[in-house]
Amino acid sequence: MNKSLAEKLIHWRRDFHQYPETGFLEMRTASIVASTLDELGYSLQLGKEVMAKEACMGKPNEMETTNHLKWAKENGAMVGYLYQFEEGYTGIVATYDTGKKGPTIAVRVDMDALDIDEVLDEEHVPVKEGFRSKVPHKMHACGHDAHTSIGLGLATMIAENKDNLTGVIKLIFQPAEEGTRGAKAMVEADVVKDVDYFIAIHVGTGVPHRHFVASNNGFLATSKLDVTFHGVASHAGSKPEEGRNALLAAATAALNIYAIPRHSHGVTRVNIGEMHAGSGRNIIPNQATLKVETRGETSEINQYVRKQIESIVQGAAKMYQNEYEIKVVGEAKSSTGSIELAEILSTSAKEHPFFEKSLLESNESAGSEDATFFMEEVKKNGGLATYCIFGTELAAGHHNERFDINEETLLPSVEVLYHALLKLSKHV
Amino acid sequence: MNKSLAEKLIHWRRDFHQYPETGFLEMRTASIVASTLDELGYSLQLGKEVMAKEACMGKPNEMETTNHLKWAKENGAMVGYLYQFEEGYTGIVATYDTGKKGPTIAVRVDMDALDIDEVLDEEHVPVKEGFRSKVPHKMHACGHDAHTSIGLGLATMIAENKDNLTGVIKLIFQPAEEGTRGAKAMVEADVVKDVDYFIAIHVGTGVPHRHFVASNNGFLATSKLDVTFHGVASHAGSKPEEGRNALLAAATAALNIYAIPRHSHGVTRVNIGEMHAGSGRNIIPNQATLKVETRGETSEINQYVRKQIESIVQGAAKMYQNEYEIKVVGEAKSSTGSIELAEILSTSAKEHPFFEKSLLESNESAGSEDATFFMEEVKKNGGLATYCIFGTELAAGHHNERFDINEETLLPSVEVLYHALLKLSKHV
Amino acid sequence: MNKSLAEKLIHWRRDFHQYPETGFLEMRTASIVASTLDELGYSLQLGKEVMAKEACMGKPNEMETTNHLKWAKENGAMVGYLYQFEEGYTGIVATYDTGKKGPTIAVRVDMDALDIDEVLDEEHVPVKEGFRSKVPHKMHACGHDAHTSIGLGLATMIAENKDNLTGVIKLIFQPAEEGTRGAKAMVEADVVKDVDYFIAIHVGTGVPHRHFVASNNGFLATSKLDVTFHGVASHAGSKPEEGRNALLAAATAALNIYAIPRHSHGVTRVNIGEMHAGSGRNIIPNQATLKVETRGETSEINQYVRKQIESIVQGAAKMYQNEYEIKVVGEAKSSTGSIELAEILSTSAKEHPFFEKSLLESNESAGSEDATFFMEEVKKNGGLATYCIFGTELAAGHHNERFDINEETLLPSVEVLYHALLKLSKHV
Amino acid sequence: MNKSLAEKLIHWRRDFHQYPETGFLEMRTASIVASTLDELGYSLQLGKEVMAKEACMGKPNEMETTNHLKWAKENGAMVGYLYQFEEGYTGIVATYDTGKKGPTIAVRVDMDALDIDEVLDEEHVPVKEGFRSKVPHKMHACGHDAHTSIGLGLATMIAENKDNLTGVIKLIFQPAEEGTRGAKAMVEADVVKDVDYFIAIHVGTGVPHRHFVASNNGFLATSKLDVTFHGVASHAGSKPEEGRNALLAAATAALNIYAIPRHSHGVTRVNIGEMHAGSGRNIIPNQATLKVETRGETSEINQYVRKQIESIVQGAAKMYQNEYEIKVVGEAKSSTGSIELAEILSTSAKEHPFFEKSLLESNESAGSEDATFFMEEVKKNGGLATYCIFGTELAAGHHNERFDINEETLLPSVEVLYHALLKLSKHV
Repeated sequence: MNKSLAEKLIHWRRDFHQYPETGFLEMRTASIVASTLDELGYSLQLGKEVMAKEACMGKPNEMETTNHLKWAKENGAMVGYLYQFEEGYTGIVATYDTGKKGPTIAVRVDMDALDIDEVLDEEHVPVKEGFRSKVPHKMHACGHDAHTSIGLGLATMIAENKDNLTGVIKLIFQPAEEGTRGAKAMVEADVVKDVDYFIAIHVGTGVPHRHFVASNNGFLATSKLDVTFHGVASHAGSKPEEGRNALLAAATAALNIYAIPRHSHGVTRVNIGEMHAGSGRNIIPNQATLKVETRGETSEINQYVRKQIESIVQGAAKMYQNEYEIKVVGEAKSSTGSIELAEILSTSAKEHPFFEKSLLESNESAGSEDATFFMEEVKKNGGLATYCIFGTELAAGHHNERFDINEETLLPSVEVLYHALLKLSKHV
Repeated sequence: MNKSLAEKLIHWRRDFHQYPETGFLEMRTASIVASTLDELGYSLQLGKEVMAKEACMGKPNEMETTNHLKWAKENGAMVGYLYQFEEGYTGIVATYDTGKKGPTIAVRVDMDALDIDEVLDEEHVPVKEGFRSKVPHKMHACGHDAHTSIGLGLATMIAENKDNLTGVIKLIFQPAEEGTRGAKAMVEADVVKDVDYFIAIHVGTGVPHRHFVASNNGFLATSKLDVTFHGVASHAGSKPEEGRNALLAAATAALNIYAIPRHSHGVTRVNIGEMHAGSGRNIIPNQATLKVETRGETSEINQYVRKQIESIVQGAAKMYQNEYEIKVVGEAKSSTGSIELAEILSTSAKEHPFFEKSLLESNESAGSEDATFFMEEVKKNGGLATYCIFGTELAAGHHNERFDINEETLLPSVEVLYHALLKLSKHV
Repeated sequence: MNKSLAEKLIHWRRDFHQYPETGFLEMRTASIVASTLDELGYSLQLGKEVMAKEACMGKPNEMETTNHLKWAKENGAMVGYLYQFEEGYTGIVATYDTGKKGPTIAVRVDMDALDIDEVLDEEHVPVKEGFRSKVPHKMHACGHDAHTSIGLGLATMIAENKDNLTGVIKLIFQPAEEGTRGAKAMVEADVVKDVDYFIAIHVGTGVPHRHFVASNNGFLATSKLDVTFHGVASHAGSKPEEGRNALLAAATAALNIYAIPRHSHGVTRVNIGEMHAGSGRNIIPNQATLKVETRGETSEINQYVRKQIESIVQGAAKMYQNEYEIKVVGEAKSSTGSIELAEILSTSAKEHPFFEKSLLESNESAGSEDATFFMEEVKKNGGLATYCIFGTELAAGHHNERFDINEETLLPSVEVLYHALLKLSKHV
Repeated sequence: MNKSLAEKLIHWRRDFHQYPETGFLEMRTASIVASTLDELGYSLQLGKEVMAKEACMGKPNEMETTNHLKWAKENGAMVGYLYQFEEGYTGIVATYDTGKKGPTIAVRVDMDALDIDEVLDEEHVPVKEGFRSKVPHKMHACGHDAHTSIGLGLATMIAENKDNLTGVIKLIFQPAEEGTRGAKAMVEADVVKDVDYFIAIHVGTGVPHRHFVASNNGFLATSKLDVTFHGVASHAGSKPEEGRNALLAAATAALNIYAIPRHSHGVTRVNIGEMHAGSGRNIIPNQATLKVETRGETSEINQYVRKQIESIVQGAAKMYQNEYEIKVVGEAKSSTGSIELAEILSTSAKEHPFFEKSLLESNESAGSEDATFFMEEVKKNGGLATYCIFGTELAAGHHNERFDINEETLLPSVEVLYHALLKLSKHV
């Protein structure tokens, strides 16, 4: 039986890999996930049922969403489920209630891809094996295709072994983890309100093949901000005094944002990844945008940086008599895994022959992750939460056009998660 | 006969108006101009014969040029002449040598249009009369369609009255006046080396209908610069110290460029019309571009501003260990008209019943103009030069989507120029 | 008689030259002026009677004022008048009412010196002739010693010829012209409210020896601003996040102040002559000051620049959560002389054998002057006003440590003014 | 005997406290130290013998040094030793060679005070007990008076117990630790070249009374830089284009220095504690200075920051066509104590009845310390080194005007050091 699950895992992963969809557009993916879970007998909550609209950050506009719906229809989406996702709310919660007294356990995977052109090189396995991305400028270069497969694999194993489990199992398929945009909306829709144990997963991230980390604590809190300045245009030669220069407001803000002081309590980061201003050489620019990103070792430190940015932007706008907006288009918290839960996962990995090394905790910085929203919510309500990593061989780093994983990792990952669920079932 | 010339003028102007072509892409226009002049018996020099390649500034790239050639073929270009212009060198010099002893007189008109969408409003005359631009985002919104027609009208009048003239007449049809990009290349190809009298013309520019200005001296010298910074990208979260931030180099340059000191000898202007930097929120930006424009009351003052910009850009690049380029994509000088020549034109206008008022000189700033390259060259060689303006009723200001002229102005403009040529013919 | 006046003029000038006093500290000078005018029979208004306290700009603090009072007592001040000036309100208006029907005519001179060390060089005339400044770091390097002497000389001539005059004559001795700080206070005390003709004078300013300019119109309006930022200090190593950096607020303001756009209606200037911030290398600076100066071709243009500065300072303070103050420590207007009055002065100069050339109007920029406050006030009330210049040979430019005038100019200047007063007396 | 040493320690400390001397001016202090050690029989190396001239950073100029020499003579310096220190090279190395085989052990204390006015409050112990600083604006507010006393106390104990020791003992009295200016010069004079064990000490720094830290590892590497820009002055109103604005160069540098990216390998700090620019409101500033401080978790990270500053300063100077200088006026490294040596000290403290708690290692940041130069040099040569802290009750934080220690700490500190030396004597 497991041999067949191994094949399914690879099949799913390669299918998703060929049809990558970016955040809040995972319509084809979600429709296939929903269809599969439905068949397996899970009780499903879809789309807006599991996502608070106003908490979705950096969601594509209506035109882009509608265009993508068309694409999804033409590219193998399960049409019966598609209507639930057609506005771009693509989250799924699949619940299996054992009917027996026991804990509520949630496992979260993410489904979105990146705006990257996958390499064409013959040595790149997806090319050689014929499952390279079919979509220009889009690619699963972070492994979320694997995560979604593992989620479906775990769903399958649970369904096939349901008598061994107690309590309630919730499988969460999250959209838009890239840019840390999607988790908050699912948390605000209360999908983990009743959860006792929460597990989020990732493959790779520098953890070696056949290694396992039960609690990865290095995530930095982050905010992604779109800042816009609105000034007044005028002819730069004949009426320079009538302009209200948005380019200069933005340039001044940029310099001062980078100059935000370090924080004595921990690491901070700030970046302005893009700036665009103006519309013609001889016109005083009346519009400027900045794409800003902050990070902090704790959520408090990240808030400190954000607060400085607000003052700076307000001041720069004031300087040039501009109007401004600051739009939050992504957000994640810092979070520390619950050691008790990590120990159960670590033990499961140690017991599995595939894993050669199982680390309880790691503080390696792995950027930011919005699974932290789920973790902090579960912990706030008295539950336990952790973020674990299944090491794998990477063809190239995450977000690289040559990124690829070793598919051997898929089945053992599912099995470790399943055995942890077994232990947790009996734990209460 | 003149009645028929009036009709021709309107016909030409409306034809050009419907098929606007921007700088260095005036292929259809130039082919029609060349064909018409050829028929009238002028000796023609075309394209690279009258333009120094390396002095063309801000010329579109090969792909854009090739695409436009295709468009020109499909939109009424005179194919027999088109090959001369197919690389985007679209200048024309038409010479008529009377064979009689006399001065060499040049008249220069420009042919290019702007990147503007012409308004669709029914009250806009080109819409009502059916000659609105057929090309999206392109429009003759500055009157160069009228200038080209006047040039052809003058060619016609000369051809029909050639026995009255002495010396040599040169009609110059210049590409890419917008952005002050095309004149320098024609000057460097020596097209006015032998010229005794040089006249450039414009319609409108705020001069009232039926008024004439014989010498417009308010033009500011100008430079158009494209500045690029090349840094090094790195992940803003995990390797901030490895980046060489081009966005910050550009922002610093921008602030300091605006802070260039005023000049005690006259007016200066500086503007950064556009800034674009970076490629992703979490990447330290490795590229940034600035579209810069300088102006000065004299060419020397403009050079002063340019020199400061070079220091600032070099310094900003140094600060962030960036490489940089400064590309000159447009340039014009300041110039003062020769009063002796202006008097002849002014008298011609006074003698013409259409013009109610003829002003000898004006210092109204009318932005910048690269006809000044021709003027300064002619004056340097001992000749006389002026820039004159035929007032007309404007539906809206130059470069506005509702711009339109009063076509009544066309024939009188041709006639004033012709009578000035007559006077100049007898002048030596 | 005039020979003796010539001697007096030189005596006064050299006495004032040896005892230079800077703005609002002209106590010794004012006491001698008051004593002399009193003796001549003028009706005197002194100190706070002729100066609105709250309109004095950039006045030294109490300690400096008290210290200077002591100095004045020890250095030849006329003690009987000194108490009127002891708080630093050192203006004087001396009135002579002829009792006959006639116009009210005012002549204004200024009395203050500069913070400059006079050169010690033997070839410098004040050294050679023994009247070099006795006060370290203070010097009459702009000629106000000559102006005060001319004022006293004119007072003498009027007193000796009073039967020839009609109406009312007001002689105004103004403090603190340097930094344009004193005139506004006298205007706000209504000292020229009733004036029909107003004449301000200067020597030198580039006008050649034996030349005269009856109306100098080149003065730029100006504002002198002291800007202070108040932040919060913190230890830069251990608590960087607790600081509110006043140095960065000021640096940002400085850059953006220089970047204020040019004005299409005329010349602008802006300068930050000094910046001082912080108190220790390892402390985040909690205080910063900027000494700012604006100029504009008209008072309106100058106001435009000032308004931008206010926005910039407010914005920079906001950026760094600082408090700020902007203190006006000097101010002058632009003003154009009344041609009718200038003609009378010009004629007087032409009639005087000493002057070889008399110019009616000049637009040469001569920096800024707060006599413009008087001029605009008089003109607002329907009177006529002008600012005239008595050319003289200068040993070095104004504000230079080698500055010196040719004393031959003194008597002819008094005589030209007296003859203009005679003409004006009969003019109504 | 120890009772009498306790009294001596207090006597020394209070004497030094009354006569505080800042870095490179510790002439009185050094003369007393030298005299005392000479009497105890130590072999002495003084002044330039133990300091490399060119490695002294931020040393006062000749005039200040000469003036202080005069002060020292008048305030109780031991004149017989003073000449050795009269140029401001005030370091001392006192050596006692037991003649027995054994290790070379060095203990380093520092002697300099701070530019602070000691509080006058009666409750402040130095006031109440009559040993407040007699020097305005100078105060031992960091405890170096205690360190020097402990050094002399240890010298006394060693002298009285010399038969118990083996090897060579070197007592190092360092000038100018504040601003991290003096250690490098002693290291470059090779004073620890032959050292097997090196111990530096501090009192207080937040370590509680009766607590001891054997190895304090939290010091950040640091550089103190004085940056000067030299531009060209010009009159801001009449010749703005002739200036080369040093204020703007410095303001631009300041902003960009604060914007130096964080480093992924560890903590950084950067501060500009002071900026001073310009000399008059209407003059374009031709000089500007910045007092800069960098810090890094490691010496490499600190070097990274310094390198960025050099690029920024160079770039800012280039921008404004200024010349610049960067002068290093202080420097310290990061360093980690040798655990083996720390254990010996920790044991000594544990064995002493006064100390209630002895910590082996601490990573609390305690700013920067140039003892790290000695430590790194000793470790480089194969020796062991540590920096230990004797906790004490503080009346107020270090560098505060109310700073004071609990003198009970002095004798136990000497005894712990002595017992560690005993152990090390037998250790080899």
